[in-house]
Amino acid sequence: MVQAENPVNTVEVCFSPVLFPEILTHGDFIVVLVDILRATTSICTAFENGVRSIIPVATLEEAKAWKDRGYLVASEQDGKKLDFADFGNSAFSFSRDRVEGKTLVYCTTNGTRALEVAKGSNPVVIGSFLNLDALASWLTGQNRNTVILCSGWKNKFCLEDSLFAGALTLRLLETGKFETACDSARASIDLWKVAGTDLMGYLEKASHRQRLRRLKLDDVIPYTFTTGITAKVPVFNGREIVAEQTKKSE
Amino acid sequence: MVQAENPVNTVEVCFSPVLFPEILTHGDFIVVLVDILRATTSICTAFENGVRSIIPVATLEEAKAWKDRGYLVASEQDGKKLDFADFGNSAFSFSRDRVEGKTLVYCTTNGTRALEVAKGSNPVVIGSFLNLDALASWLTGQNRNTVILCSGWKNKFCLEDSLFAGALTLRLLETGKFETACDSARASIDLWKVAGTDLMGYLEKASHRQRLRRLKLDDVIPYTFTTGITAKVPVFNGREIVAEQTKKSE
Repeated sequence: MVQAENPVNTVEVCFSPVLFPEILTHGDFIVVLVDILRATTSICTAFENGVRSIIPVATLEEAKAWKDRGYLVASEQDGKKLDFADFGNSAFSFSRDRVEGKTLVYCTTNGTRALEVAKGSNPVVIGSFLNLDALASWLTGQNRNTVILCSGWKNKFCLEDSLFAGALTLRLLETGKFETACDSARASIDLWKVAGTDLMGYLEKASHRQRLRRLKLDDVIPYTFTTGITAKVPVFNGREIVAEQTKKSE
Repeated sequence: MVQAENPVNTVEVCFSPVLFPEILTHGDFIVVLVDILRATTSICTAFENGVRSIIPVATLEEAKAWKDRGYLVASEQDGKKLDFADFGNSAFSFSRDRVEGKTLVYCTTNGTRALEVAKGSNPVVIGSFLNLDALASWLTGQNRNTVILCSGWKNKFCLEDSLFAGALTLRLLETGKFETACDSARASIDLWKVAGTDLMGYLEKASHRQRLRRLKLDDVIPYTFTTGITAKVPVFNGREIVAEQTKKSE
């Protein structure tokens, strides 16, 4: 347990949306929403490529209704793009020529469902390896307790989200401005350290990595685990996601 | 992912009772119930010391009702023995002179609640470090899929149960008669390997270990993490827990 001399803010990790009601952090806190494969990685990509805003929706019916109203829609089920949609959830499809200046509607198997659980009185920000550096610095500047919410895979614990939770928790603890008494946070850090410098090798253990390989959707994997791609921190304002620019990129 | 040449049985790890409805293992399987600190450790101790059977109950009201009917009752809340009870949940209190040949009623914060979740059509057995060797050998002999259910702490992921899950999963995979495609199982094994030979040192990270220290209930910690204490595998038959003797101790 980190014992800061002047205890500051706490960081807690939640391994599944199903576990979110059980978190120990109360009162005012920020939720970092994580769905590394692939929603939050794709959302960070879209903002880096100039998307104006993203409207997350929880159901396919809502996604279709937005499509009928003329919006660009990203929607997938079990990793595959749905026929009516303009985008699946591969980060590579959110290129600048397709998204710059536009508003997208986004519906995914896991990620937006987790957002439904997290949204409420607390602000929700979008985390991925792409914006890890910027996010750590932004969170440190907020001076509030933080809960990292892993979307998991169909509500189950998943390795890739947990590795990210470990990487982010470690960054936050290293600032000396956060502390944790959360076993999930401790476990995440250890898994992140086990993965070490061979993240791609470690990911071979991840069931979702194998699933994407079978679906031939794994071209985006190395990019997904690259840090420093964007300095934008997407923030959900209750209706849509918009990007906050961190100092680094101003 | 382990790819046995002749795929045999699966092993899956569930980090919290709340996640149990999300498991991927279907059909016929055995549940290994784990609450290292402290219910399942104490139950294994009681059987090693000759208890005849243990009746698990979910609520304090039930526990009191059994007490009024003259039964010996173990009951605790947040680690502390309740006034009306004969035992708390320290393994050391279940000594041979107090339990041999008797039937106990058992109610704990976490462990029996997890049992409520797990019981149904599937058999439930009790796991702890004390019977790890016997349990691994018994499970291997069953030739059925296995789900290791961690009780956690107040439904949250906890390190001590996950370490046990890792130790048991590793034993099962090493027989070549099990395989897994479960990220929680992979993570558990890695945490178990990180803890390595300094399990006591690693446990300093565990929030429940710190909680027991504050309550001065941590005298039982080194014993709790000792393997090979008993060859008995407690099995829940739908009404009570009784011990199956494994070959090693016959």
